[in-house]
Amino acid sequence: MLLRQLPAALAIAASLLALPAAADTAKSTPTAKELLAKAKPEEWRTPDPTNLLYMQLPQGRVVIELAPDFTPLHADNIRTLVREHYFDGLAIIRVQDNFVTQWGDPNDDDSGDKSKIKPLGSAKAKLPPEYTRAIDPKLPWTPLPDGDMYAPQVGFSEGFPVARDPGTGREWLTHCYGMVGVARDIPPDSGSGNSLYAVIGQAPRGLDRNLAIAGRVIQGMQYLSALPRGTGALGFYTQASQRTPIISVRLAADIPPAERENLQVLRTDSPTFAAIIEAKRNRRDAFYTVPAGKIDLCSIDIPVRALDVKH
Amino acid sequence: MLLRQLPAALAIAASLLALPAAADTAKSTPTAKELLAKAKPEEWRTPDPTNLLYMQLPQGRVVIELAPDFTPLHADNIRTLVREHYFDGLAIIRVQDNFVTQWGDPNDDDSGDKSKIKPLGSAKAKLPPEYTRAIDPKLPWTPLPDGDMYAPQVGFSEGFPVARDPGTGREWLTHCYGMVGVARDIPPDSGSGNSLYAVIGQAPRGLDRNLAIAGRVIQGMQYLSALPRGTGALGFYTQASQRTPIISVRLAADIPPAERENLQVLRTDSPTFAAIIEAKRNRRDAFYTVPAGKIDLCSIDIPVRALDVKH
Repeated sequence: MLLRQLPAALAIAASLLALPAAADTAKSTPTAKELLAKAKPEEWRTPDPTNLLYMQLPQGRVVIELAPDFTPLHADNIRTLVREHYFDGLAIIRVQDNFVTQWGDPNDDDSGDKSKIKPLGSAKAKLPPEYTRAIDPKLPWTPLPDGDMYAPQVGFSEGFPVARDPGTGREWLTHCYGMVGVARDIPPDSGSGNSLYAVIGQAPRGLDRNLAIAGRVIQGMQYLSALPRGTGALGFYTQASQRTPIISVRLAADIPPAERENLQVLRTDSPTFAAIIEAKRNRRDAFYTVPAGKIDLCSIDIPVRALDVKH
Repeated sequence: MLLRQLPAALAIAASLLALPAAADTAKSTPTAKELLAKAKPEEWRTPDPTNLLYMQLPQGRVVIELAPDFTPLHADNIRTLVREHYFDGLAIIRVQDNFVTQWGDPNDDDSGDKSKIKPLGSAKAKLPPEYTRAIDPKLPWTPLPDGDMYAPQVGFSEGFPVARDPGTGREWLTHCYGMVGVARDIPPDSGSGNSLYAVIGQAPRGLDRNLAIAGRVIQGMQYLSALPRGTGALGFYTQASQRTPIISVRLAADIPPAERENLQVLRTDSPTFAAIIEAKRNRRDAFYTVPAGKIDLCSIDIPVRALDVKH
């Protein structure tokens, strides 16, 4: 008797990798999950610990990989904020359904107590926008074949979803689920990285090239996406008691190896990743009547696995 | 001093409609919110109470509008299940991050106790798939101008996102955020509506034409999207204690008018809805550096308002 259920999500969560195959009956071509199980060791990469943020919430640890090749000044400034423990004791200040979860200093908004704003220490208060960068032919590039509504080209580079415009010679990270952006005021240079947001709904691609994207949540996304929605304007919480406190944010490189997560991310320029994209474009297991034949950029999650053996 | 924040979501939540305008400074063209405030009374419709499900969870009430012009047999069967109180005492059985929240009978899966499966009463156990329907020129149709990756045409009809293929003469509801689909086993006719799911992440458009869509959550989406994610395969909960119980599901038509929600949905064939789409395609307020010039089907929420005066 089959499970009365939907098929597995197109997304592959790390938590699914080690699960029993109860739902995988009667398929005719390899699924993403099967392909992933056969990936070669060298197709996985271990992110640089100087690019990994561990945000500790009461519910668990959120791991964010920074994207210094796309937003280097923001990566540097966020590292400075983290190393000076800027985020410790701050909070999740906003959760707007089908949009974003945002964190930072609760006093740094219109209803906050300006006298209590936490100083940025040696971090900069303003940064050049870094909304786009010149296309770098030296960076790996895995294009998607099905086009995109918002950009001339889309694909993946170094583990991130990216859009490109050969006409202008620019490329930029895109606002897919789980991507982490830099909140700002109206002036484009007003973002410092002291308030960040993660996309928790349909990709708000209209934000692309209007905000800097600092990285991607690679583990613990559920601790940001399943939070109670704020009932104030734009999903801000109206009472301090509703906010989830941030216990700490640390750079993986700054904590003892034994306390680090042992995460690996599938290389987006690997044959297995290409095969997974193809499998997702054309789902041919028994459940599907009509394969879509296509996949959009933000419907492809980049696989992450947690190795059992810690350092 | 401006709020350090992101702009409002492209989506317009009912909860935003009555909020102060603190964040709306320095804009140069009307925003969706401003347009909506000026909508004429006749641009709003009051859904037929025979098409409205009230699912009462401990956290609050979820309101779902059925789509009988697209999936009439499923609407009928779901009404039968609801009127015989089939869902009362069942549960949210699955929450998979960035995919779906699913509810139904916990015993009706591989790990359940088959002897305890709740009977369907006079409802049918199988239904014709109703994945697509013949395009009906009599139904209202508001096409979107920017195309779509998955279908030749997309737009809105009767308050729902719809895709069309003039080549085959078929149209179908699409898997956008908040849409409610019918879970099934492998056989296409194996869905009855006794297990339903709501999309809580990036639109899984690859499911279009592979599952019947019964309707859309028009209020209380946060009670489905902010639930703890299941840790079992495909996001199923592994322990009964993790499931959110369904207190009851009722048809609005079957409860006293004084106990009904007083909801109105903006007509998707109204001038204001068209103006909102245009405003979202080109955000010209001061926050935006680069208007996208485009909008994808699933990035447009259909506005809903709750009137203060109940019946």
